Amino acid sequence: MTQGIFITLEGPDGAGKTTVLQELVPRLEALGKQVITTREPGGVAIAEEIRSVILNPQNTAMDDKTELLLYIAARRQHLKERIIPALEDGALLLVDRFIDSSVAYQGFGRGLDIEAIDWLNQYATDGRKPDLTLYFDIDVEEGLARIARNKHRDVDRLDMETLDLHERVRKGYLTIVDKEAERVVKIDASENVEKVVEAAYTAIYDRLFR
Amino acid sequence: MTQGIFITLEGPDGAGKTTVLQELVPRLEALGKQVITTREPGGVAIAEEIRSVILNPQNTAMDDKTELLLYIAARRQHLKERIIPALEDGALLLVDRFIDSSVAYQGFGRGLDIEAIDWLNQYATDGRKPDLTLYFDIDVEEGLARIARNKHRDVDRLDMETLDLHERVRKGYLTIVDKEAERVVKIDASENVEKVVEAAYTAIYDRLFR
Repeated sequence: MTQGIFITLEGPDGAGKTTVLQELVPRLEALGKQVITTREPGGVAIAEEIRSVILNPQNTAMDDKTELLLYIAARRQHLKERIIPALEDGALLLVDRFIDSSVAYQGFGRGLDIEAIDWLNQYATDGRKPDLTLYFDIDVEEGLARIARNKHRDVDRLDMETLDLHERVRKGYLTIVDKEAERVVKIDASENVEKVVEAAYTAIYDRLFR
Repeated sequence: MTQGIFITLEGPDGAGKTTVLQELVPRLEALGKQVITTREPGGVAIAEEIRSVILNPQNTAMDDKTELLLYIAARRQHLKERIIPALEDGALLLVDRFIDSSVAYQGFGRGLDIEAIDWLNQYATDGRKPDLTLYFDIDVEEGLARIARNKHRDVDRLDMETLDLHERVRKGYLTIVDKEAERVVKIDASENVEKVVEAAYTAIYDRLFR
């Protein structure tokens, strides 16, 4: 059984993660890898059903712990149905959002206990961590402005949160970068797309292919 | 803020929990309490949405940990929206299924780690346990035969499990009864309804009103 390469992309909406992810594919394929891109909930039917509960704009009564537990449940299913089989096939996996999103958003953002979130992530993933995580860092107001300019995406319940929450989320990501420097690389996402893609590619190449 | 009384009913489908619960209401009201009956997910919209993901017969790919996390998420929401407000109003709450169902079904039944389930229950409930739990004990084959005779209820994904699983679930409940004798009372549910209701009423009266 060949083992694949597991890379996650993290950061706020508006940082350009999705665009960068698409641009990385041909460059990584040129290194001879089968590249698979996915995102939580990643087209896994059960996880999509869970996600629709989380994002339903009518669910304003949702408790913070309920929301966290639903993200963790969707993560578990996506991991089992999508990530693990692809890694067992030896693919290079680019995954948009994973364990760090829960720490940044539900922990630093909403104030839930970080140790508990770490426990839940560990439980849902059987302790499997990405080989490399790229954190796309951008000023909060610039990130939100980019979302506002994007006409192709509907505003959901989570976009309606305060600026203050997004500042705390960024602080959370920066804390993770400090704490897990061997796994997480910070990418400056305020640059133009070409430069951000180049920085992301270089980080992957240096850490995993050199 | 008056504190209410929190009673849960546990045991397999077919043990008669729901019938007994209805019969208990007027007798407990006669003791001067406001009685509220509910069951997970208890008509709480978010928890009902979660439940429909769990019970969807198409979701055969559901991982055991995903299923557990979804039950825990639904429990959290039901607790926050339904149980805690009712207890704060001073009501006597009869709740059909709670923390012990996860231990019996997902732990003993499916083989998930019991300590992890205890952790998750603790997390979702902020450590709040029922004042009293009635476990309705019945021979597995007799319980399943009663479900089969009940024409008013559709067979769902969970009914399609093996006899062996139901035997393990029963062993799980009996283990909980042994371990938490101060909270959990075993009721012989093989008797006729009148006798079972009487035993349940007596247990509640002796433990909480004498």
